[in-house]
Amino acid sequence: MKYENETRIIVAVDCIIFGFDGTDYKLLLIQRGFAPEKEKWSLMGGFLKPDESLDEAANRVLKELTGLENLYLEQMHVFSDPNREVVERTIAVAYVSLIDIQQYKEKINDKYHAQWFTMKELPKLIFDHEDMVNMAKSRLRYKAALHPILFELLPERFTLPYLQALYESLYETKIDKRNFTRKVLSTKMLIKEDKKDKSSSKKGAFYYHLDKSKYQEEFQTVLNFIPKNDMPTSND
Amino acid sequence: MKYENETRIIVAVDCIIFGFDGTDYKLLLIQRGFAPEKEKWSLMGGFLKPDESLDEAANRVLKELTGLENLYLEQMHVFSDPNREVVERTIAVAYVSLIDIQQYKEKINDKYHAQWFTMKELPKLIFDHEDMVNMAKSRLRYKAALHPILFELLPERFTLPYLQALYESLYETKIDKRNFTRKVLSTKMLIKEDKKDKSSSKKGAFYYHLDKSKYQEEFQTVLNFIPKNDMPTSND
Repeated sequence: MKYENETRIIVAVDCIIFGFDGTDYKLLLIQRGFAPEKEKWSLMGGFLKPDESLDEAANRVLKELTGLENLYLEQMHVFSDPNREVVERTIAVAYVSLIDIQQYKEKINDKYHAQWFTMKELPKLIFDHEDMVNMAKSRLRYKAALHPILFELLPERFTLPYLQALYESLYETKIDKRNFTRKVLSTKMLIKEDKKDKSSSKKGAFYYHLDKSKYQEEFQTVLNFIPKNDMPTSND
Repeated sequence: MKYENETRIIVAVDCIIFGFDGTDYKLLLIQRGFAPEKEKWSLMGGFLKPDESLDEAANRVLKELTGLENLYLEQMHVFSDPNREVVERTIAVAYVSLIDIQQYKEKINDKYHAQWFTMKELPKLIFDHEDMVNMAKSRLRYKAALHPILFELLPERFTLPYLQALYESLYETKIDKRNFTRKVLSTKMLIKEDKKDKSSSKKGAFYYHLDKSKYQEEFQTVLNFIPKNDMPTSND
């Protein structure tokens, strides 16, 4: 049995993968392997198959193009302008993930052609992929002001200056160090280690790691790391 | 030009329309007009056409089925389980709107077969429409705890007890009246009128209306009308 007279449309998934390298936010891109726009820079994308859900498609596409598996991918928004694609009408469901660059660095670079780009120096992207990235960035700013989601971008061990840079870079603002430290430590999500990182200063900065159970517990509480004047809006 | 070998899939839109009648949250439903599941209760749904965006499709479908126009419809989530539909694979993009029941009451009931149901007494819905409603309700609870979006559900003039009932009903909790009044008035979004509503008590309660410009301005600020213990989580 089939619906008569209804239009059938190609459905794509596109994955926006954010990372942080200690200074800058980065985006994982790939050179598109087929026409049109072959060899232009693109988000990790592919088409929905008959027997898979969109979540499954996003995971499959990401694995095929980068080797990355078992990432947390969150559905963000469907882009559906009738003219967004040049070949044939295609709607695209955008997915977002935050990953620790260090952990996946070699995995990605060894076998695949995906490449990290600094957010400030992105190449021109195909179709409406720039709109997708902009929406993802706004939503990240909004959500990260409320919940500790940026911790997904951290390496196993990190210093407080590293954590502060993670927030400062996203909001393109300077945050008062003493205030930030006090607020972050008051969440009790961080466990201090004995060792110091001495790579950035003579005095050094203690390493911390995340208390995973506390992090899970606190994930839904509303944070206030961001000064009120720098708070993004949900329409940002 | 066309993509070869790719699957084309039917894309539906389904609209979740919430209202509030002073006591209960309500959902607008319609009896499905075609097979399968003909005459079963359904969200307002239809299929995406070749020349329209999803936003346009959602607006068209809603107008065709209820007569409602120019509502603010927000895209929520795509439901894509390969077996969610019985006739033929269909992915469904769910949209949500909040409307003032009073304003649209007669418009809807006169010409169309759409009907308001109390959220606590919903009939069985077709396909995965119950999942859509549950997700919409959770997201509403989450968002309304942070932003004054519930004000979209209010009639032109309303009393503070009416406003409090709007919050208490959504969170299924009792809120301390004095605290609530103080917090709400401190937003400066409400303008007090001279007249009282005496329908619910002898003493009566003053009518208020929204200061629209202040409301726009404050829309993105984070509220705290809801006591911390009753705060929903974004996974709720």
